[in-house]
Amino acid sequence: MFVYQKKLQYPVKIDKPNPRLASIIISQYGGPDGELGASLRYLSQRYSMPFDELKGLLTDIGTEELGHLEMVGAIVHQLTRNLKTKDIEGTPFEQYFVDHTNGIYPTFASGTPWTAATMQVKGDPITDLTEDLAAEQKARTTYDNILRLSDDPDVNDVIKFLRQREIVHFQRFGEAIQLLREKLDQKNVYRMNPAMDL
Amino acid sequence: MFVYQKKLQYPVKIDKPNPRLASIIISQYGGPDGELGASLRYLSQRYSMPFDELKGLLTDIGTEELGHLEMVGAIVHQLTRNLKTKDIEGTPFEQYFVDHTNGIYPTFASGTPWTAATMQVKGDPITDLTEDLAAEQKARTTYDNILRLSDDPDVNDVIKFLRQREIVHFQRFGEAIQLLREKLDQKNVYRMNPAMDL
Amino acid sequence: MFVYQKKLQYPVKIDKPNPRLASIIISQYGGPDGELGASLRYLSQRYSMPFDELKGLLTDIGTEELGHLEMVGAIVHQLTRNLKTKDIEGTPFEQYFVDHTNGIYPTFASGTPWTAATMQVKGDPITDLTEDLAAEQKARTTYDNILRLSDDPDVNDVIKFLRQREIVHFQRFGEAIQLLREKLDQKNVYRMNPAMDL
Amino acid sequence: MFVYQKKLQYPVKIDKPNPRLASIIISQYGGPDGELGASLRYLSQRYSMPFDELKGLLTDIGTEELGHLEMVGAIVHQLTRNLKTKDIEGTPFEQYFVDHTNGIYPTFASGTPWTAATMQVKGDPITDLTEDLAAEQKARTTYDNILRLSDDPDVNDVIKFLRQREIVHFQRFGEAIQLLREKLDQKNVYRMNPAMDL
Amino acid sequence: MFVYQKKLQYPVKIDKPNPRLASIIISQYGGPDGELGASLRYLSQRYSMPFDELKGLLTDIGTEELGHLEMVGAIVHQLTRNLKTKDIEGTPFEQYFVDHTNGIYPTFASGTPWTAATMQVKGDPITDLTEDLAAEQKARTTYDNILRLSDDPDVNDVIKFLRQREIVHFQRFGEAIQLLREKLDQKNVYRMNPAMDL
Amino acid sequence: MFVYQKKLQYPVKIDKPNPRLASIIISQYGGPDGELGASLRYLSQRYSMPFDELKGLLTDIGTEELGHLEMVGAIVHQLTRNLKTKDIEGTPFEQYFVDHTNGIYPTFASGTPWTAATMQVKGDPITDLTEDLAAEQKARTTYDNILRLSDDPDVNDVIKFLRQREIVHFQRFGEAIQLLREKLDQKNVYRMNPAMDL
Repeated sequence: MFVYQKKLQYPVKIDKPNPRLASIIISQYGGPDGELGASLRYLSQRYSMPFDELKGLLTDIGTEELGHLEMVGAIVHQLTRNLKTKDIEGTPFEQYFVDHTNGIYPTFASGTPWTAATMQVKGDPITDLTEDLAAEQKARTTYDNILRLSDDPDVNDVIKFLRQREIVHFQRFGEAIQLLREKLDQKNVYRMNPAMDL
Repeated sequence: MFVYQKKLQYPVKIDKPNPRLASIIISQYGGPDGELGASLRYLSQRYSMPFDELKGLLTDIGTEELGHLEMVGAIVHQLTRNLKTKDIEGTPFEQYFVDHTNGIYPTFASGTPWTAATMQVKGDPITDLTEDLAAEQKARTTYDNILRLSDDPDVNDVIKFLRQREIVHFQRFGEAIQLLREKLDQKNVYRMNPAMDL
Repeated sequence: MFVYQKKLQYPVKIDKPNPRLASIIISQYGGPDGELGASLRYLSQRYSMPFDELKGLLTDIGTEELGHLEMVGAIVHQLTRNLKTKDIEGTPFEQYFVDHTNGIYPTFASGTPWTAATMQVKGDPITDLTEDLAAEQKARTTYDNILRLSDDPDVNDVIKFLRQREIVHFQRFGEAIQLLREKLDQKNVYRMNPAMDL
Repeated sequence: MFVYQKKLQYPVKIDKPNPRLASIIISQYGGPDGELGASLRYLSQRYSMPFDELKGLLTDIGTEELGHLEMVGAIVHQLTRNLKTKDIEGTPFEQYFVDHTNGIYPTFASGTPWTAATMQVKGDPITDLTEDLAAEQKARTTYDNILRLSDDPDVNDVIKFLRQREIVHFQRFGEAIQLLREKLDQKNVYRMNPAMDL
Repeated sequence: MFVYQKKLQYPVKIDKPNPRLASIIISQYGGPDGELGASLRYLSQRYSMPFDELKGLLTDIGTEELGHLEMVGAIVHQLTRNLKTKDIEGTPFEQYFVDHTNGIYPTFASGTPWTAATMQVKGDPITDLTEDLAAEQKARTTYDNILRLSDDPDVNDVIKFLRQREIVHFQRFGEAIQLLREKLDQKNVYRMNPAMDL
Repeated sequence: MFVYQKKLQYPVKIDKPNPRLASIIISQYGGPDGELGASLRYLSQRYSMPFDELKGLLTDIGTEELGHLEMVGAIVHQLTRNLKTKDIEGTPFEQYFVDHTNGIYPTFASGTPWTAATMQVKGDPITDLTEDLAAEQKARTTYDNILRLSDDPDVNDVIKFLRQREIVHFQRFGEAIQLLREKLDQKNVYRMNPAMDL
């Protein structure tokens, strides 16, 4: 189970409203490679992952990503909370606003509602960890692109923190695959699905 | 941010594999009225909800639902973890198995991947809390239907616990709407969107 | 069965083309809380709703919403029918135009095609009516937002009519839940699904 | 606007519950080529269709299809209304039941919620009428398949009526294209989009 | 099987970057009536199509459409490959860019990922060929709309080529239906599904 | 452009109809990790991939996967082409049959139409190649699961061939990442997006 601690993993303090930027950053809330997909992917893959340290790794990173989801929500909220209607008109935020006002809704930048089709839980440990490597790279690239499109230093400071965490996760998943391969080799079941066949 | 505690909110101990039942209960993991949608709905609605006690309520219930999501995942996992291939053939679990083996993936009972289109964050406090009342009733009905289709007492014991929690949440959201209406009346802004207009 | 009467429930007469506004108002045609979902939700819930007066209420409101769908279509049509290509370029209507010219297509403001995942028919009378309360509040909020973003009095006159009807429907669904609870209490089946258990 | 008449276009009287058959026929309620898509397609295409008789044809057929939607809902309802839980277990209706009890929900046979992506409104009269020809053939084929899979004469009697109506509609849309081509030739605008260019 | 030839069916040489235009033309890559759907529709319909010449026609046109898909990808690539970030900001390409940088991804103009719900394979030869007639008209209309919104002669030259091919395909599918009807009449099975009943 | 050669990459000769197996194997036609997604992913990623040998690799593998798509279609077709209606009733193929007869349609095993949300083109070479590693593992696992559920030697012979090709592709993508890293290091741009920044 989860316990909520009333603070963000890293502080978010944004003064300048910016609906254009909000309509881009929302993709890390509910976009194809965002934090919702990340946390749900890892927390779901736990069940069929053999070996306690790998299960624990997925739980740790999945839980941290829930905190990142909260941070991205805070960014979008702070970018849009004090908007006047005239600040919204003619911006790409307008199509979002009509359906969600300035609530935070898990959607792609394009407005497509988040779908679990963007993630996979395959029930094969090698496969799931490889999926996770790809997920971290995709999230990292999205943060790269946000940094290209944003010149708000308050925003970019947080985005750089989040981007850095994805790189750390990528490395940890890489180590996890190594560990898994070693364990599987010891049991002479290389290339089998250890969740099914052990 | 969130902290993980390594225990379930309520214990899940299921001995008898049952792929048919798993293919139904998965809907409370990733179905239209399941625990994923519940937690994400409440944790997302927090940002634009005025008044600290209402924001806190959404955080509390949203966090609890994350724990319920974990419990439902544990049920499905325990119902399918020791299956032999021949136990799967000819059951409705077979279509799930080909794409997810016995991993836990957020999907409707029908196999539709979860989509955020099943939930809404409207950015209007009255509206969001009414959405939450409906969500709790829909979850409660799904648990009713699971109880109709299951005769495994180990499963039903957990399902009844989860069903009861939805009823408690329904009542708390009802009280929250009352509280909100009182606060809004005091400020004489009844029927306005307090998130936009205060 | 349905009979068409060749007039709108409330007249729509818009002179000024406005592709920006059209790209917002389309969400009440085919968006997550629009008139298509409303009419289909109520007309579908009828079948399993016990008690003739409740079934009749769903039929009445569902049929009226079909007329609202028609009105919203007329608004979008009148806002876009005389557009020159140069009026479209650079507006958010351009992405819609390439795929639908100035036809009327049931889509979210974001361009997501309407999906039945945005509505629910749960087959439990209490639950379905609570879903309907939420639906009416969500539609009302969307109309609120359109009024915030539009300053065309011809449009706003119609939108205010439609918004007012949602409030009336909300009240009627509230009364319906009261009526249902009374009927269920008389039969001592409170909290059971009367569609299944009576 | 639409007026409801409290009778079906053609009577539906089914005695024998049949969850297997219900799980197939639901596709004509909310499947890719079902009556929901049909009515919404035609009623939406009206707005940009030039020439009153073509607009009228779309309105007539679209309104009739609303009545067919109602009839298909009645079939599914009558096939499932008196089911006991034990009649549902192990049938393909079980996955539907957990999320919708025996309510009527617009879904594919596979359980995919209906999506407007299955239909098109292109805003070009020739194109829209050709889309309609295809739609009628697709609906006709679905009814053919239902007849192959059903041996309930009460069901088949209604399905044959509905199938016959699709063939009539196909012919009427064929005549409409002829009429449109003649009108366009008179104005020497063949191959232009008359909705845009007249 | 397929062999790749390293040249485009028709040359694409675009000098001027244009993110606005790219965000429209992408709909012929992955939009509801684009080249992906076209090729996949025809190549999938082959299997159940009786008569070798019709199967061959579907294979020919389906393979050609794969080449058109490649050409449309080349157009979008050339319109976006040399963009500076400042050229993207404030254009409708920005929402695409955050998730795909300047990669080519199969999406509607609105940003909805391509879905097979936009096409049908009905397994009935008459129906599938009628679906194909509609598909060609819808693609033709999309190219019409692109021509209305583009004034880049390098782009328009290619679009006109692609548009012309859709018209040719429409005619060939029309002839195919004629051929099919003749063959079916000879066997006296008119209005039956020849894939099932011969 | 593509040229069709009228033979399969590897022969498919299946005698025994088997609708249950068809309803599983269809997932490699249009499922989340199937051949459609594979070919489209690689053929789309080509445009923004720097370095001719990597672009060529994506083209080669993408083209081969088109041939695999054709082979999987042939398997499903041969498993279902001679079915009598009574062979279909009560099998999981029935829900597919009502909407597609025995045509081949790109769908998940669950019946969800294929969606591009299951794949990504990120426009960053490192990221796209990592996505491809994950894609190959996911496809390999699906083939593993099909082998677990099938005991038809004619089917399994082909599935083993396809599975083996995924492993070869996985290795080639691994080598490609190595090559890419070396090239990027030489230019001292490690961790930048070479498609954007070179």
